[in-house]
Amino acid sequence: MRVRVSPPARMSTSPSAHRPTAGAPRVVSDLPTPAVLVDVDALEHNLATMAARLPGALLRPHVKAHKSTALAEMQRRHGHRSFTCATVREMIGMAHAGLGDDLLLANEVLDVERLRSLAALQDRAMVTVAVDSDATIDAAAKAGIRHVLIDVNIGLPRCGCQPRDAGRLADFARSRGIDVRGVMGYEGHLMVSDDRDAQRRETLSAMQVLRTAARDVGGVIVSAGGTGNHDVHAEHLHDTGVTEVQAGSYALMDTYYSTLGLPFRQALTILGTVVSTQEKWAVADVGLKSLGMDHGNPSIAGCKVWFCSDEHITFATEKPESTEGGKASGGSAGSNTVLERAPQPTVGSRVRVIPAHVDPTMAMHEHMWLVRGDDVLDRWPIDLRGW
Amino acid sequence: MRVRVSPPARMSTSPSAHRPTAGAPRVVSDLPTPAVLVDVDALEHNLATMAARLPGALLRPHVKAHKSTALAEMQRRHGHRSFTCATVREMIGMAHAGLGDDLLLANEVLDVERLRSLAALQDRAMVTVAVDSDATIDAAAKAGIRHVLIDVNIGLPRCGCQPRDAGRLADFARSRGIDVRGVMGYEGHLMVSDDRDAQRRETLSAMQVLRTAARDVGGVIVSAGGTGNHDVHAEHLHDTGVTEVQAGSYALMDTYYSTLGLPFRQALTILGTVVSTQEKWAVADVGLKSLGMDHGNPSIAGCKVWFCSDEHITFATEKPESTEGGKASGGSAGSNTVLERAPQPTVGSRVRVIPAHVDPTMAMHEHMWLVRGDDVLDRWPIDLRGW
Repeated sequence: MRVRVSPPARMSTSPSAHRPTAGAPRVVSDLPTPAVLVDVDALEHNLATMAARLPGALLRPHVKAHKSTALAEMQRRHGHRSFTCATVREMIGMAHAGLGDDLLLANEVLDVERLRSLAALQDRAMVTVAVDSDATIDAAAKAGIRHVLIDVNIGLPRCGCQPRDAGRLADFARSRGIDVRGVMGYEGHLMVSDDRDAQRRETLSAMQVLRTAARDVGGVIVSAGGTGNHDVHAEHLHDTGVTEVQAGSYALMDTYYSTLGLPFRQALTILGTVVSTQEKWAVADVGLKSLGMDHGNPSIAGCKVWFCSDEHITFATEKPESTEGGKASGGSAGSNTVLERAPQPTVGSRVRVIPAHVDPTMAMHEHMWLVRGDDVLDRWPIDLRGW
Repeated sequence: MRVRVSPPARMSTSPSAHRPTAGAPRVVSDLPTPAVLVDVDALEHNLATMAARLPGALLRPHVKAHKSTALAEMQRRHGHRSFTCATVREMIGMAHAGLGDDLLLANEVLDVERLRSLAALQDRAMVTVAVDSDATIDAAAKAGIRHVLIDVNIGLPRCGCQPRDAGRLADFARSRGIDVRGVMGYEGHLMVSDDRDAQRRETLSAMQVLRTAARDVGGVIVSAGGTGNHDVHAEHLHDTGVTEVQAGSYALMDTYYSTLGLPFRQALTILGTVVSTQEKWAVADVGLKSLGMDHGNPSIAGCKVWFCSDEHITFATEKPESTEGGKASGGSAGSNTVLERAPQPTVGSRVRVIPAHVDPTMAMHEHMWLVRGDDVLDRWPIDLRGW
């Protein structure tokens, strides 16, 4: 199925909007490497699938996962006008790109100068900041921030106040003249689980804690969740009182989330060139400086990744499994079994490396290439990097 | 001991060269976070120590570890005029900064367009490129590259030709009109070892392989080594025939190399602000997007790091050990033993996070702050990022 790709508003909307300019690479094999490739059909599928499950304001897409105003614009065209950000720079970039209808900075910030630069956006953008302590409320008040959410700790050992303290903090914020729009909580420890029933139970239990805090706080927003349990939230919005889900990874995906059986496709790969080969391995120019490594090694289809260095990935083709459909076993091979290893790729050939963690990977690159198969359709800047 | 800090040539050499301009942060507590801090005294110590062991051309500093022409200029002032690079962009940036006396691209490149941009530097810079195959020599010849080294595999499963093929590749390069300056080999698998005697034996064994290949290749350069075994090389240059060592991490250091007992100090930290605390943990704004994570979690002195998220590090203070000098044991505590855990840091306080891997960490940041204690002396761009 071919789907229409929505060009971002800031770009030409002519029929040639997705064709590169003269002299720009037109096919993937012409791209300099390492290069971020985004499969537009997979991206479109992911955005449409999520927008069907959590339409409009029920999803507050997290831009930290792609750091691109062009991709956020595509999310807006799928109906989402409110966004989640992780950094002040993301907030400012989104507002400047005309995507400031409802921006939430979902992290605590003590830096009054930076908060002032956010406050300066408030006449043209809706700016809301997460707070979880007297100090963060003080900083927001000093900077002239008008709206906050109370960030409530619901089990992940990270930010968020004790649930029992949420009401007091809301009162304190209001006493400082700040509008409290509601609560947020991030159950990051429940995003990936082998046992999806347990994940559901624990998510619902965390949401009970958040709902209680929300009653103490007041306001209308109850913001939580992520890609890994977006489906639990979508099914239980009426039980939980959650008003919006903060998902980001669903747009591009990575190998970490791919284990969950979610209905999203792998849209992101890092293109590499094979620069050296030996009998037992091959080396491509995709390394630690182009891949988020905290979730472990990336993957290459049909290959075993040995290790990554600063600028390199060493890998080998795997022995193909039996073509008979049965699992490979220690017994005798069937007639269709191919036990020979596929030949290593040749020097100069291309490989597509699938990152284990999308967010830090995107933050390492200056731009992404939108591709369909071997055709290069466009180049988008990754323009929300840094802090 | 206070040491003189050499300002980079491109900056003012007036006495105020290390004082920030009006309005710029003057103390560490004023810096926006996360921020790369470089302790100038530790840096100066590291550069002086290495320059004493491997003076002048015996060290070819690897700029991939800091990606800064300002820091490379400081290395030049310590007597090193030849540099190692990992990317074409590093090569071009170094040449444009006037640091192009002798630049080695120690990685294979197939991209003829990029190689042409290197070749265009050759009238004002000495450009040498590593090759390890007919295809890489072809690409260099097509681009008009004048000088190469034959990259020889000496045990690390990554780039480099089979040692027995080095002479043939040198002949092939010369047949294409390219000057072959010698060989390089990188024994990356021998950089860190618990058994330094074994590390020495294996390094010398790898150098025998490289020396044999060097005889087949001809030329005058035998380039190898790194920070982790620079001392082995320094002691054995006459036995091994190695003419230069490619070390980079020694300038700034990280926790990975700190286990070796090398004479280098930790010059690099990432400054964070504590943005949230609970009874059992604290959270600072230094996360996966500001730390190379492939060598595991970073460290904070006196604290236990729990985990890192995109923009956060969760950590707790540790129970201080006995002050009696003996190792903590299960027995009764001595009179000076403090068994209580130190209090968690307060919201708004600062922490200095020590990365586990310097190279990818530096590649994530736009600039570094040169500091002495709490004084901010200067800001240097990390201007060699990307490819």
